Amino acid sequence: MDNGRVTLLHDINQRGFASDNYAGVHPEVLTAIAEANGGHQIAYGEDVYTAHLQTVMARHFGAGVQAFPVFNGTGANVLSLQAILPRWGAVVCAETAHINTDENAAPERVGGLKLLTVPTTDGKLTPELIDRQAWGWGDEHRAQPLAVSITQTTELGTAYTAAEITAIAEHVHAKGMLLHVDGSRIANAAASLGTDLSTFTTDAGVDLLSFGGTKNGLLYGEAVVVLRPEENGAAAALPFLRKLNMQLASKMRFVSAQLIALLEGDLWLRSAQHANAMAARLAEAAGSLDGVRITQPVQANAVFAILDPVVADRLRETFRFYDWNPHTGEVRWMCSFDTTEADVDAFVAEMKRLLAEQA
Amino acid sequence: MDNGRVTLLHDINQRGFASDNYAGVHPEVLTAIAEANGGHQIAYGEDVYTAHLQTVMARHFGAGVQAFPVFNGTGANVLSLQAILPRWGAVVCAETAHINTDENAAPERVGGLKLLTVPTTDGKLTPELIDRQAWGWGDEHRAQPLAVSITQTTELGTAYTAAEITAIAEHVHAKGMLLHVDGSRIANAAASLGTDLSTFTTDAGVDLLSFGGTKNGLLYGEAVVVLRPEENGAAAALPFLRKLNMQLASKMRFVSAQLIALLEGDLWLRSAQHANAMAARLAEAAGSLDGVRITQPVQANAVFAILDPVVADRLRETFRFYDWNPHTGEVRWMCSFDTTEADVDAFVAEMKRLLAEQA
Amino acid sequence: MDNGRVTLLHDINQRGFASDNYAGVHPEVLTAIAEANGGHQIAYGEDVYTAHLQTVMARHFGAGVQAFPVFNGTGANVLSLQAILPRWGAVVCAETAHINTDENAAPERVGGLKLLTVPTTDGKLTPELIDRQAWGWGDEHRAQPLAVSITQTTELGTAYTAAEITAIAEHVHAKGMLLHVDGSRIANAAASLGTDLSTFTTDAGVDLLSFGGTKNGLLYGEAVVVLRPEENGAAAALPFLRKLNMQLASKMRFVSAQLIALLEGDLWLRSAQHANAMAARLAEAAGSLDGVRITQPVQANAVFAILDPVVADRLRETFRFYDWNPHTGEVRWMCSFDTTEADVDAFVAEMKRLLAEQA
Amino acid sequence: MDNGRVTLLHDINQRGFASDNYAGVHPEVLTAIAEANGGHQIAYGEDVYTAHLQTVMARHFGAGVQAFPVFNGTGANVLSLQAILPRWGAVVCAETAHINTDENAAPERVGGLKLLTVPTTDGKLTPELIDRQAWGWGDEHRAQPLAVSITQTTELGTAYTAAEITAIAEHVHAKGMLLHVDGSRIANAAASLGTDLSTFTTDAGVDLLSFGGTKNGLLYGEAVVVLRPEENGAAAALPFLRKLNMQLASKMRFVSAQLIALLEGDLWLRSAQHANAMAARLAEAAGSLDGVRITQPVQANAVFAILDPVVADRLRETFRFYDWNPHTGEVRWMCSFDTTEADVDAFVAEMKRLLAEQA
Repeated sequence: MDNGRVTLLHDINQRGFASDNYAGVHPEVLTAIAEANGGHQIAYGEDVYTAHLQTVMARHFGAGVQAFPVFNGTGANVLSLQAILPRWGAVVCAETAHINTDENAAPERVGGLKLLTVPTTDGKLTPELIDRQAWGWGDEHRAQPLAVSITQTTELGTAYTAAEITAIAEHVHAKGMLLHVDGSRIANAAASLGTDLSTFTTDAGVDLLSFGGTKNGLLYGEAVVVLRPEENGAAAALPFLRKLNMQLASKMRFVSAQLIALLEGDLWLRSAQHANAMAARLAEAAGSLDGVRITQPVQANAVFAILDPVVADRLRETFRFYDWNPHTGEVRWMCSFDTTEADVDAFVAEMKRLLAEQA
Repeated sequence: MDNGRVTLLHDINQRGFASDNYAGVHPEVLTAIAEANGGHQIAYGEDVYTAHLQTVMARHFGAGVQAFPVFNGTGANVLSLQAILPRWGAVVCAETAHINTDENAAPERVGGLKLLTVPTTDGKLTPELIDRQAWGWGDEHRAQPLAVSITQTTELGTAYTAAEITAIAEHVHAKGMLLHVDGSRIANAAASLGTDLSTFTTDAGVDLLSFGGTKNGLLYGEAVVVLRPEENGAAAALPFLRKLNMQLASKMRFVSAQLIALLEGDLWLRSAQHANAMAARLAEAAGSLDGVRITQPVQANAVFAILDPVVADRLRETFRFYDWNPHTGEVRWMCSFDTTEADVDAFVAEMKRLLAEQA
Repeated sequence: MDNGRVTLLHDINQRGFASDNYAGVHPEVLTAIAEANGGHQIAYGEDVYTAHLQTVMARHFGAGVQAFPVFNGTGANVLSLQAILPRWGAVVCAETAHINTDENAAPERVGGLKLLTVPTTDGKLTPELIDRQAWGWGDEHRAQPLAVSITQTTELGTAYTAAEITAIAEHVHAKGMLLHVDGSRIANAAASLGTDLSTFTTDAGVDLLSFGGTKNGLLYGEAVVVLRPEENGAAAALPFLRKLNMQLASKMRFVSAQLIALLEGDLWLRSAQHANAMAARLAEAAGSLDGVRITQPVQANAVFAILDPVVADRLRETFRFYDWNPHTGEVRWMCSFDTTEADVDAFVAEMKRLLAEQA
Repeated sequence: MDNGRVTLLHDINQRGFASDNYAGVHPEVLTAIAEANGGHQIAYGEDVYTAHLQTVMARHFGAGVQAFPVFNGTGANVLSLQAILPRWGAVVCAETAHINTDENAAPERVGGLKLLTVPTTDGKLTPELIDRQAWGWGDEHRAQPLAVSITQTTELGTAYTAAEITAIAEHVHAKGMLLHVDGSRIANAAASLGTDLSTFTTDAGVDLLSFGGTKNGLLYGEAVVVLRPEENGAAAALPFLRKLNMQLASKMRFVSAQLIALLEGDLWLRSAQHANAMAARLAEAAGSLDGVRITQPVQANAVFAILDPVVADRLRETFRFYDWNPHTGEVRWMCSFDTTEADVDAFVAEMKRLLAEQA
């Protein structure tokens, strides 16, 4: 126990590189929750915080966008895709997409969607890759590819440029499809690209966005943002879809207050820039070690590397992280808003020590 | 703005009688969240708080119970029912059950369940009422009634006694069915009955419980509690069902920390007793007014009353509350952990004034 | 074995009053199947029979109607309702509706629909009864009542008049809802009303029809008929819905050929008139017996009656039929295209004999 | 019109190579339907034909197997997979599997299943290929791979040997998974392998079979056959799943009578042998032409070939067939029970003529 805390059960100084959702809550977010507390507010989204969130989102994504706060990223993704697809719709996505690999088929089971996947080397789709699955319209035997979903930044730590997304959006729209972005790490993308959020979303032609908060320091909370509400029926569908998909928070003011805390000032960017910088520091230091090979461009807060499995396992005794591909010895190291330079340096030092022992 | 708050957007002194989820977060819960913050914890439920929650739940519900924190009540209900029913299962419930009236068919659409409803006068099922729908096993044309769901306290503010639930459980089990309790206001039931939580749940033979936190002062968070894990497969199913139904919180330590804050000491009971007492105070004072008729026994934190619609609408200009049945003029007044005696007294005084004007 | 048949396993002279789907296939239908055989036809509905079916259906239901052959009645109903409802839609129907009681929740489980049921005395909805459930539009917590489904003739053997359906359609349309008719016995309705098929469907304002064939002498086969294709998107949705709901017959030419055989001439009407006449004969004869009380108007091919359960069970030793309500002793007797006057007379004679013994 | 037929609308002498479901009904099957007609039989499967089918199936697949007749192949596949998988289950299958490519996501949308696909060269899985997706048990984020589905013969016209299936079954069972065979062309496999049906199914360790009838000369009708009913709960689940998935035929006697006609004698084998022989004849003759390259082993009734697209299109003016891969110019030619030697010879002659013109 430190500081006289009553219910503290864990070591608050322990950090690792397993995932950005192992981190806790940014203090400014906790403060925002406390400030939104007290008194009564209409439940289920008719509160003043959710109303104000619309203004804040419009500042980042353009006038008229509509934001629907939800509990988590899987919820944001499934709601987004249901909102733009008929019951016979299919979604083209990368084989590595979170919706394909890590959501226990929620898009299929809850959303009733089919995913048409494409292998990629870096987690990024291109118009050419999309075309491998974007065909067969009108054939009732084939799930109809009517949307594309890309992840920004990708599950492999890479970032699409605004030009790349623009090219995809134009390609997709020309085929009568819509473009969704899974932005669970969208702030890291903006920090990486050095642009504002709209440059590679609304301005690039993206139709719907899963805006990520939890991995950037929120307690919980994401938002489905309809970026072009006049061009599809998503905004009218989402209130119903959110409720029936069990993603409607009764005390929504607190989800919205967190998102406001993130986006009203520059907290979203500060936290993302910091996490990215820590990943860059880690990649540079670890990448210079004999026995470590960085396998993906480090464009956000993730580092992918090949490391001897024996060393990896011993390293994990001190710092938790995940295998990415046990067959190749590829591991993933994630940095978060609360990763410190000292964390990175201690991690690399221990890695170096273990590699030396192993050699 | 008071206290130099930056993002405060609402009047923290404004309260009404619309719903217990219009209230905010109990201060002790906010403190618990802050204390659980800092450092890294394994995401998705392998954290120390979620582990400790098992111990705390066992203290209330019996050794061996297993608790699965989720985001909201609809999620808890759908997960519970899916966990105990095959794909052809149906659930007998009261026509007024929240799962039937207020979840936009999430049990049907997401859960793939059929609800077999029974009209009641007070929101409570009995063995006799259950039997109106509990028949037809083996007939493949009929959705198979394999579970009963009751709400404690009910949507009409009434409470089942432990004896009533025991009788239902015995009846249900004798037919090979299982018993689920939607306990979104379960603390109010314990406060009303003057018993501990297990007396009318585990000890009464209940199989699965949706344990409610949000309406009793949490920021967000409920739990599916498997009360008799050795007698059905629910505990093995729930990890997968929670994920695929989009109810798995990545930063679960904070859901668990809130539930611990509620249940480790007596916060759950204090808050519920207070809310119930405010409802009793309100019912007594309002019920004595000419022009007000209390329509349901006030056994928890809800008051149902017939009030002239014109008076009701004028009263709502100051204190928000909902119509229950616009045809009969029945309204619902909910009290919460933060309702004050002054709130109640001011509400009744205004009601009295308006009734006098109307007369 | 009679007639040198090789695989005959049953007594072809045995008939009962259990259901019109206990009957076999009308000989003219078998002939049509044989005639459509030979050579190759494009599978999945691009054959000449399915094309011609459109013309035949248009003759009965009006120019421009579009017919989609499917396998069975549950399929026709679920496809119809999905085709006119969004993912958050609900259907108002009678508590006794086949979709509610006899489809093992296929509308809910496969269709993702909610049924909002209304008790009736004779299986028939009215505008007033519909209004008990037709409310709450815009409230995301409530499954949105956007369609009404009525059964013609009803599950209780009664028939809506054209005026009654017109009144319902106008009422429903005024509320922005659509009207579906489950017409698994629609020919019996036309025979009962003495009108053509469009008078109480297209002309009355019905939007979508499940056209029934199996209970009127087909081997298998029903059709979803979009009666007002320019007023909703059902016709565009149905090819995809039919496939994904596993109702797309590869050798569709044979479903269409059967429907053509039924509808090209007057087979549909002859068979229905005959079945209705047999039910009238049965009701008149049985209703005159002491110990039998006819409980519903006999307006089609079903007779509902109260009969001593002991007599009913003994009667069933010779003629199979179903209990309708075991609590009241109500039974159901169905006549079909192949019921003979001799069948009816023998049935009533046996009933009379048993009643006398019992007295 | 020939033979005084009244409703004949098509040229009964026209045949092509598009699909085995472009063919009609084998005359012996039509006779069986006619013989099962007349009198009343209990609907929905309690008839004597469906009872006798169990005996017939047992003769082919082993004592105790249980057969559940359904309408079509997609239905058989989805029912089979639902019957052996929990709500969080996934199915490993070839990328080219019919369930993945041609069922408009019915397995996902109706079945709530996830397909984990593996690329193959010839449509056949192996233990090694299965292992690319068979991992991750216990990880709630991943759809749980608890079944494998193979197609026999495959969508590419190849056949698994009994030894290959045995190896797969052993591999799959060792991992706690179950093995399903999509046998929409299972008779062609037996004809190709020269064995009885059980050698490469029950005896090889297959758990569940979609037995195909339609593509082998039935009017309509397939069956889910539970091959090892004592080892899983599929047989108890299937009556309910068949009904709720809208695959329960009311006049089931006729589906069963057709399956009996196929399997009681050797019709199943005669038809399959003939179709296979026609494909062999076609492959040999066409494969010897300059400008035609056979691309897959011809082990059943399908021939895959590369052909100049211009020639292919001109050839299609006379004989309908499908492109398989428009990018490579690969086409598919299917033979059926009614393909004649003259059909094959005329087809090859026309191909030869067009190739010569083109050269």
